[in-house]
Amino acid sequence: MKLLYEGKAKQIYETENPNEILMHYKDDATAFNGLKKDQIHNKGILNNKISTMIFGYLKDNGIETHLIKTLNERDQLCRKVEILPLEVIVRNVFAGSASKRLGIEEGVPCKEPIFEICYKCDELNDPLINDTHAIAMGIATREELNRVWELTAQINQLLIKLFDSVGVRLIDFKIEFGKDADGNIMLADEISPDSCRLWDKDTNEKLDKDRFRREMGNVEEAYIEICKRLTKEEA
Amino acid sequence: MKLLYEGKAKQIYETENPNEILMHYKDDATAFNGLKKDQIHNKGILNNKISTMIFGYLKDNGIETHLIKTLNERDQLCRKVEILPLEVIVRNVFAGSASKRLGIEEGVPCKEPIFEICYKCDELNDPLINDTHAIAMGIATREELNRVWELTAQINQLLIKLFDSVGVRLIDFKIEFGKDADGNIMLADEISPDSCRLWDKDTNEKLDKDRFRREMGNVEEAYIEICKRLTKEEA
Ligand SMILES: Nc1ncnc2c1ncn2[C@@H]1O[C@H](COP(=O)(O)OP(=O)(O)OP(=O)(O)O)[C@@H](O)[C@H]1O
Ligand SMILES: Nc1ncnc2c1ncn2[C@@H]1O[C@H](COP(=O)(O)OP(=O)(O)OP(=O)(O)O)[C@@H](O)[C@H]1O
Ligand SMILES: [Mg+2]
Ligand SMILES: [Mg+2]
Repeated sequence: MKLLYEGKAKQIYETENPNEILMHYKDDATAFNGLKKDQIHNKGILNNKISTMIFGYLKDNGIETHLIKTLNERDQLCRKVEILPLEVIVRNVFAGSASKRLGIEEGVPCKEPIFEICYKCDELNDPLINDTHAIAMGIATREELNRVWELTAQINQLLIKLFDSVGVRLIDFKIEFGKDADGNIMLADEISPDSCRLWDKDTNEKLDKDRFRREMGNVEEAYIEICKRLTKEEA
Repeated sequence: MKLLYEGKAKQIYETENPNEILMHYKDDATAFNGLKKDQIHNKGILNNKISTMIFGYLKDNGIETHLIKTLNERDQLCRKVEILPLEVIVRNVFAGSASKRLGIEEGVPCKEPIFEICYKCDELNDPLINDTHAIAMGIATREELNRVWELTAQINQLLIKLFDSVGVRLIDFKIEFGKDADGNIMLADEISPDSCRLWDKDTNEKLDKDRFRREMGNVEEAYIEICKRLTKEEA
């Protein structure tokens, strides 16, 4: 199989079907735009399980996604889409870079959810933009952005509910959207502790990639815990 | 008269009327959030003239502003408002910090105008935000922001027309809005070569504060030129 793209956390392979790709989950973890690099034992397996569960849940609730089928421990068969070069970020609680940039302590709830887009461009450090920048730069159309925001608001509500049901606060998350040949916008990439901030509802213990970023230890254990809670099976 | 606030470019004084302030234009110029400091000869006089002309033009075209009356060379009588802690920025052409952040060469026209807000906070370096941040932080309400964007789009169209009529391209500009006691949103502060990028239509010569920021020389001359063109009188 031909490797189409090697990312920091996943590889994308061609399949016989030109409209489908194979997404392979690696154990590689990076932070601070690639400056910090390491492996998290079994992360690929865990994220594949977690993202499979979440995308299935979203599909059952009417959200169109790229996921066709999870093939094995590390591989998903997905619809091939043209990824919009946007990181779509939702924040329910101030944390991380937003806390720093805005001078608001980590853990303060947002009065209303924050919806951000960053222009996916490593050389520019994924700068925060808004819809008018995306349109002015030709990155997306008004119609595409409207659809992205409609889906994103729905996804946030669904994910808050899902995580709440397993004793987890959804602090923030990043998603990506793709466009199929017909211009149809759908959820792509992954949703996992790599791309979410997840805090235990009772203890506020961090159960996400911040344990890796901030060298807090028990990184794999956190991913296992999220996997267990979501799939109700031993990871 | 009691000094209420000393800014980088202006002083705000109390008046006998609690609903009015006196805005005094200084010659002080700063750039890079105060790192670069100097004086521009006669800048206060020129900006007072320019801003008086522009606010008058906007008023004649239905835009409510804080300006009551220009009193003398350096002083304006204005309605006292509660300034929304937002720098509202409009870009018709990529330039300055936007060019740098987004990797787009200075001078490239925007496909559609860009509308930005930055959170006015010197310690945080006026970070770029969007409406959802402003609402989540309690900086402004949805209704206030809708009004701000409605006025801003109108102001952009009017300013493009005004500057075009005197042979100037309006590249970008920054404005501030205030709220009166009734919650009424109106244009406040100033509009001048301190807060706009203005390029000669034929030569693209910069006629604004970038001449100061970038040490290009002929700074006062540029302000005089804008003043002359707008007021059709010798400055
Ligand atoms: N259905 C899909 N079709 C095509 N590409 C996809 C699809 N889903 C995700 N991708 C892309 O595949 C890549 C996954 O790799 P990974 O997440 O490791 O990348 P990365 O290192 O995060 O880099 P970046 O996301 O900045 O490209 C991403 O570029 C993602 O946008
Ligand atoms: N009508 C008004 N009523 C009250 N304050 C006003 C009014 N118009 C403008 N201001 C405020 O008066 C100050 C003008 O001073 P100046 O422009 O020099 O400030 P500055 O150094 O740019 O600092 P900053 O704008 O960050 O406060 C600004 O703080 C501006 O927001
Ligand atoms: Mg990725
Ligand atoms: Mg000012």
